[in-house]
Amino acid sequence: MTHHTAEHRSDEMNQCIDNCSTCHAVCLETINYCLEKGGKHAEAEHINLMSVCADICATSADAMLRGASVHSATCGACAEVCRKCAEACAAMGDDADMQRCADACRRCADSCGRMAKAA
Amino acid sequence: MTHHTAEHRSDEMNQCIDNCSTCHAVCLETINYCLEKGGKHAEAEHINLMSVCADICATSADAMLRGASVHSATCGACAEVCRKCAEACAAMGDDADMQRCADACRRCADSCGRMAKAA
Amino acid sequence: MTHHTAEHRSDEMNQCIDNCSTCHAVCLETINYCLEKGGKHAEAEHINLMSVCADICATSADAMLRGASVHSATCGACAEVCRKCAEACAAMGDDADMQRCADACRRCADSCGRMAKAA
Amino acid sequence: MTHHTAEHRSDEMNQCIDNCSTCHAVCLETINYCLEKGGKHAEAEHINLMSVCADICATSADAMLRGASVHSATCGACAEVCRKCAEACAAMGDDADMQRCADACRRCADSCGRMAKAA
Repeated sequence: MTHHTAEHRSDEMNQCIDNCSTCHAVCLETINYCLEKGGKHAEAEHINLMSVCADICATSADAMLRGASVHSATCGACAEVCRKCAEACAAMGDDADMQRCADACRRCADSCGRMAKAA
Repeated sequence: MTHHTAEHRSDEMNQCIDNCSTCHAVCLETINYCLEKGGKHAEAEHINLMSVCADICATSADAMLRGASVHSATCGACAEVCRKCAEACAAMGDDADMQRCADACRRCADSCGRMAKAA
Repeated sequence: MTHHTAEHRSDEMNQCIDNCSTCHAVCLETINYCLEKGGKHAEAEHINLMSVCADICATSADAMLRGASVHSATCGACAEVCRKCAEACAAMGDDADMQRCADACRRCADSCGRMAKAA
Repeated sequence: MTHHTAEHRSDEMNQCIDNCSTCHAVCLETINYCLEKGGKHAEAEHINLMSVCADICATSADAMLRGASVHSATCGACAEVCRKCAEACAAMGDDADMQRCADACRRCADSCGRMAKAA
């Protein structure tokens, strides 16, 4: 039996791949926004956290796309990093771009948390 | 002026990001398919080519998502790798999974070729 | 205070970055070896595990190079994936290339496990 | 014949892999330095260029580690991005950290340029 396309995966895993891919893309776009905005948005700690978030989201999405059972480990780490990134973005205050990133991180954290437990 | 979301990019660049992301995902799925199928599908040269194709597609998509002007260089390389990967997949013969991968590679090669020239 | 070069990091973190980078490289080389060898070495499950191992090693090394405190999460996942990859490679039997990969995975698992706990 | 370890590759390719890996790591460390320094060092254009440089260096090193013949395409793009990144870092003036990054980028650009032509 093969597991190489969306039809062969559970709906929950396909949703998780989408959430990881979106969070990866939104983090990269938001890093650019933060660098242009400057101030606390552009502090090293915040940019570095968003950068690692983008990286682990890609690694987790790829693990699921590859059909590797060890995706549970990467999804567990992804859930943790995304939760921290969501908090950091939400703490930036009343800023639509940061809330968009926080939302993408929260959705990814939730579905990755479920994938990590399901394994 | 900021360039941090889809609304700030040209339609052509947004399409190219989508094509790169899809090609990246389809290559990873197709690697798994080829490994399970075995034979010529699973030869090192073919798996390695699809792997590099997935990597350069991610690097090019990310360069555009970051808003980096140097995306023209990564898109140029991406167009070349995707063309070779499309040929290799199409040469596998009458196989729906390989044609799907060849199609994704061709679409990515076309739009990356345009992004490389436009810069 | 800055933390942007090897002199500003602990010896243990520098060793962990080296172990992650080496494990990443050895996994990619060993994937090629396994594909050329064929048989059980080239089974999808084994190639996929080594691929995810290479990816999470890169993500963890990069998190430490960036100076991101959230490296503890990626290192925790890296330790788990590397342990599984070491077991799978060691189980391939009397094969110098696989033992070399198993050794690189074990060293990376050990130091990543310590980095995850230290955080 | 297998090509899966350093002994099976040319000295020039092994040197290029080392230069790409070092440039990748130095760019990530220097991004953190620039973010902490602020001002022109932390402008979006500069951080984005160094980020793409780190990405394409990793993609090129990985293509060679995989033994993929298509490394010539990624090395060509890597040479171009590294040259631009070296210029941008050198232009930051009398700053040891930036000169260290410019040197790593120049060495990587030179060897990747040779790998691109040799193919």
